[in-house]
Amino acid sequence: MEVKTVKPSARLQKLFDNLLAQLRQFIRDNQINHDEYRSAVAFLLETAASGELTLLSDVLLEATVDQVDSMGRVGTATSVEGPFYLPDSPMLTSPAVLPHRANEPGEKLFLSGTVKAPDGTPLAGAIIDIWQADAEGNYSHFNVPAADAPFNLRARVSADRSGAYEIQTWLPAAYQIPKDGPTGAILKATGRHPWRPAHVHFRISHPGFSTLTTQLFVAGDPWIDSDVVGAVKQPLIVNFERHTDPAEIKARGLDQPFRTARYDFILPTAEARKAA
Amino acid sequence: MEVKTVKPSARLQKLFDNLLAQLRQFIRDNQINHDEYRSAVAFLLETAASGELTLLSDVLLEATVDQVDSMGRVGTATSVEGPFYLPDSPMLTSPAVLPHRANEPGEKLFLSGTVKAPDGTPLAGAIIDIWQADAEGNYSHFNVPAADAPFNLRARVSADRSGAYEIQTWLPAAYQIPKDGPTGAILKATGRHPWRPAHVHFRISHPGFSTLTTQLFVAGDPWIDSDVVGAVKQPLIVNFERHTDPAEIKARGLDQPFRTARYDFILPTAEARKAA
Repeated sequence: MEVKTVKPSARLQKLFDNLLAQLRQFIRDNQINHDEYRSAVAFLLETAASGELTLLSDVLLEATVDQVDSMGRVGTATSVEGPFYLPDSPMLTSPAVLPHRANEPGEKLFLSGTVKAPDGTPLAGAIIDIWQADAEGNYSHFNVPAADAPFNLRARVSADRSGAYEIQTWLPAAYQIPKDGPTGAILKATGRHPWRPAHVHFRISHPGFSTLTTQLFVAGDPWIDSDVVGAVKQPLIVNFERHTDPAEIKARGLDQPFRTARYDFILPTAEARKAA
Repeated sequence: MEVKTVKPSARLQKLFDNLLAQLRQFIRDNQINHDEYRSAVAFLLETAASGELTLLSDVLLEATVDQVDSMGRVGTATSVEGPFYLPDSPMLTSPAVLPHRANEPGEKLFLSGTVKAPDGTPLAGAIIDIWQADAEGNYSHFNVPAADAPFNLRARVSADRSGAYEIQTWLPAAYQIPKDGPTGAILKATGRHPWRPAHVHFRISHPGFSTLTTQLFVAGDPWIDSDVVGAVKQPLIVNFERHTDPAEIKARGLDQPFRTARYDFILPTAEARKAA
């Protein structure tokens, strides 16, 4: 058996030694007894058996990693990737409509803006890798079987020659992270709710620039101040404007209210990232 | 899906809050970046897929739990249970010979002693649950298929009316914890060897007394001062005397050298345990 996830290095040794020392100190400080220790290992085993090790880690720890990792970074604020990203989604060209079902529920959403360098230069052909929950709070391939709607509401959209993008999708709903498994159980048992405010995920890349992983959050969402994942940052809260004027609706060729949101993404250069 | 390992309590909430705060502080103190975070989660997933979550935890953390848990305890020093215990082994009566293969390798070992209360009262019929590696360092049901030798070198032996026990077994070898999986790989990558000094495991119980989980270590073992698990305690290092005198060998009805070791186990009363 080849172990793929261990690459020896001085950094690994230091981190491992430090983590081990901290965990042992935690056991001493909190006087963990053997039954409590066995319960903790059993919880880890149940979490693994439920396929929730990544979910549990991302819910509890990834936002702290993002805070550390983004210190001194220029450009648009980052946010966590979360456990629902999938690589290799369909490649589309702006203006694009995300892959969707014939009866995709909810309000249509028109996202637009420009991808730029920190000096304002537009980044022609920047790749906007976008993924999101649907209007019922479900992610394709995770909560909705892939066979029913492959890469639903997921795509890699290339910006045009002026760095501009226009993406038509559907307004995502706030959702509860999976709450029937061990992750939900430990959150509930320790007085935490399982809700994430409505948001759209982005990974934006361009040669010579540092990839931007972030989320845009729907202003006014009831969970905006208490995201279970702790991923909300003020500059990422955006007005997803609701349009109800019949003339506007008609002008878009629609028959019900729709949303628009504009956001310009700024990517740091690879050099600026290294210097940070 | 019913989650079996989470039982809400004020203690769980406090421990979970404290652990989370410490892990987040670890991320900040050590400036963990996103790639390092993803590598750590991937290592956990690979460990789970290899069936080594319990092994990894026990190797790294259980000895610290034992140190905390045994503070103020009276009677024989405790040691860790480890990941190779099995419940429900065969019930035998002292004097007993442990279940073994027809060609069980190595030197025969005669263990004897008395199980006592702290005031010296013998504990008639105390149950000595014993398990160990064989002379090649392998545990039945783990390194040796159960079908080949069910409960090999494992039994629950009841002491006699004077609390005395006599158990015939085979001298265990020092062994390396499984080293081809993720646990072995992380130990190697961080400059740790995978050896445990030769030892025999015990769980000794009697109504009204606190169960004693411990190990007896073979004095002179080359790994006695650097047990990978950190489970060795001075009072548990025992002379497993080697007998080479032909007359002694003949008197036992044997044809090659054998070992003897004597140890009296002292169990704290359940009340003393609670007060500790």
